[in-house]
Amino acid sequence: MRRERLAGMVQESGYDAVVATSLANVYYSSGALIMTQASIPDRLAAVVWPARRDPLFVVCSIEASLAERDTWIRDIRTYEEFAVSPAALIASALKEAAQPCRKVGVEMRHLTAHYIDELRRALPAVDFVACEELFNRTRAVKDPEEVSRLASAAHVTDRAIWEAFATATPGRMEREIAADFQRRLLDGGSDTIAFCVLGSGENTKLAHPFASERVTKNGDLLRVDVGGSFHGYYSDMARTMVVGRASDHQRDVYRRLWEVHETVIAAVRPGVRARDLYDLCARSFQRLGLAFKMSHIGHSLGIGLHESPMLKPQDDTELAPGMVMAIEPMHFEPTGERYHVEDLIEVTETGHRVVSRAGKWDTLFETR
Amino acid sequence: MRRERLAGMVQESGYDAVVATSLANVYYSSGALIMTQASIPDRLAAVVWPARRDPLFVVCSIEASLAERDTWIRDIRTYEEFAVSPAALIASALKEAAQPCRKVGVEMRHLTAHYIDELRRALPAVDFVACEELFNRTRAVKDPEEVSRLASAAHVTDRAIWEAFATATPGRMEREIAADFQRRLLDGGSDTIAFCVLGSGENTKLAHPFASERVTKNGDLLRVDVGGSFHGYYSDMARTMVVGRASDHQRDVYRRLWEVHETVIAAVRPGVRARDLYDLCARSFQRLGLAFKMSHIGHSLGIGLHESPMLKPQDDTELAPGMVMAIEPMHFEPTGERYHVEDLIEVTETGHRVVSRAGKWDTLFETR
Repeated sequence: MRRERLAGMVQESGYDAVVATSLANVYYSSGALIMTQASIPDRLAAVVWPARRDPLFVVCSIEASLAERDTWIRDIRTYEEFAVSPAALIASALKEAAQPCRKVGVEMRHLTAHYIDELRRALPAVDFVACEELFNRTRAVKDPEEVSRLASAAHVTDRAIWEAFATATPGRMEREIAADFQRRLLDGGSDTIAFCVLGSGENTKLAHPFASERVTKNGDLLRVDVGGSFHGYYSDMARTMVVGRASDHQRDVYRRLWEVHETVIAAVRPGVRARDLYDLCARSFQRLGLAFKMSHIGHSLGIGLHESPMLKPQDDTELAPGMVMAIEPMHFEPTGERYHVEDLIEVTETGHRVVSRAGKWDTLFETR
Repeated sequence: MRRERLAGMVQESGYDAVVATSLANVYYSSGALIMTQASIPDRLAAVVWPARRDPLFVVCSIEASLAERDTWIRDIRTYEEFAVSPAALIASALKEAAQPCRKVGVEMRHLTAHYIDELRRALPAVDFVACEELFNRTRAVKDPEEVSRLASAAHVTDRAIWEAFATATPGRMEREIAADFQRRLLDGGSDTIAFCVLGSGENTKLAHPFASERVTKNGDLLRVDVGGSFHGYYSDMARTMVVGRASDHQRDVYRRLWEVHETVIAAVRPGVRARDLYDLCARSFQRLGLAFKMSHIGHSLGIGLHESPMLKPQDDTELAPGMVMAIEPMHFEPTGERYHVEDLIEVTETGHRVVSRAGKWDTLFETR
């Protein structure tokens, strides 16, 4: 079914072929999750999808056995690293399978300058244009199996944070707390750690700090933003707590942020535009006397971390059933310290479903 | 000192400016490790280093507080995501700080087609050329603090594997063993998991599998290749064991692979070329009756995973004191199953030092 959907996407694009090169789009198109696409980006993998033929899969010979096991694509072309350029193989696949070849969609936000220059030299008559939007739209609506994977990943991640927070008593080091929830995430079934942000006290002023040697003390704000990877599907969850006992001010700020959060979530339903949620969030911050300074208030989630639609003022996409998005409002104190909450929401036929909550987050978490 | 080294690199290049955009080169040039450069690649960060002025640092406003805390660069230019393109900011920094501006070095293997096209449109008179080699050469020789970080990271990782292997008795699931050594890696001080490959039995035929639900059984070959991240410095370690009791054939194959490994390591010293080690490895495989089919037999390691020099036939670089490299020969059985070992070697004034061994790997690890 996904295969027909992608074939339809390529045909409707009007391009002679579409070439996927990012880890996410290659995984989505081929079924093969090749982890070195992220860690060794020069080792390109590509799905070349001509408008009038079945797709071809270009992979490094090192990854051939995994590709052969996991893909449904029959025509696999391998190259030996350092000896043959993957771009040369993509160019010859286009020459062979996409004739006439005038316009080809490529991932302009993934393919590097080095490789696009090589493709343009090899095929000077071809107009290479961006195809990201095609994939973004196709991937935006998840099928039930994808929704179920994302929901389960989110739930595991939230539980890991909930349980690790209970151990975050005064005197523990940031690194220990971070190791604790990463461990729980792995035990919960995450293949690996996608990212792990933790800051307490002063360090909540930073957007994406690694956990440090800082020793937490009573009254410290502590914020985490952590993600796992479950068969290529992300989790992404942010929570804020207070180590030991919170002040009335801290509880009050959290209560207001949570009210913003619930207000935005309550508005999620088919037909609402992504930007409407952003605007509602901005107005709710104002109404509740919180400072608003976010360029986006959330993003869709899937095999990519920031998927489309993005909850930003520039995104007019109407929500549709099957979309799955992380909503993550953030409040900054005048000192720069930040409060941050995040939940994963599935858009359903009639409204929405919060799929991420394993803990009870409606009041500020304290270890007392 | 690094600052002077980089300034010298830019001046000797003959370019009017050099622009770093990859996570590793931005970290190396600025001192700021911005993790979203990997997870959200559109959110570009860049160090613009003019030949005749101090560098400028272009970062997203979201990352400004971390950049301000960690960088020594005084001129920081921030952009609001989605509202302003980082490429526009890079272009205006070049116009302002690098006049005349005829030739600019950029990371052609990192900068995307989207951003290079935007730069070329903004500065049509500028010739953008690849600058990776400059950074590769500069980063190849590590300072003593870098060597010490890499050595300690490697040692922690090797110990995690050694201890986790002891628990890999028949009947345990691949995922459990993988979670075990990832946990030990985090407890040992890794900020997060950079990558984690584990395959047993049939799955050793795959280059980079995630650990699966496969239950191991007596006599299974089991191979791991795992890396952590320690303040941005990688560890990368591969080991092979047999679950339960090995056969004589398995012990013999391992013994021969280990002899190849030690032969290559013994040849590491200043003046030897990277390709010489590759050739020696290929000859040693042949001499010991093992099948050789690797496009490289190792790579340098640092804030990048595959750094230069690479131990491949195309690399003529002469080894020099302060270089740190992973040597990782791999043998394939006729059935496709693979044996894989890896160690981290520092090139010293007089020869080399193996910095990675926490376990005793000269004979095949068995859990009996």
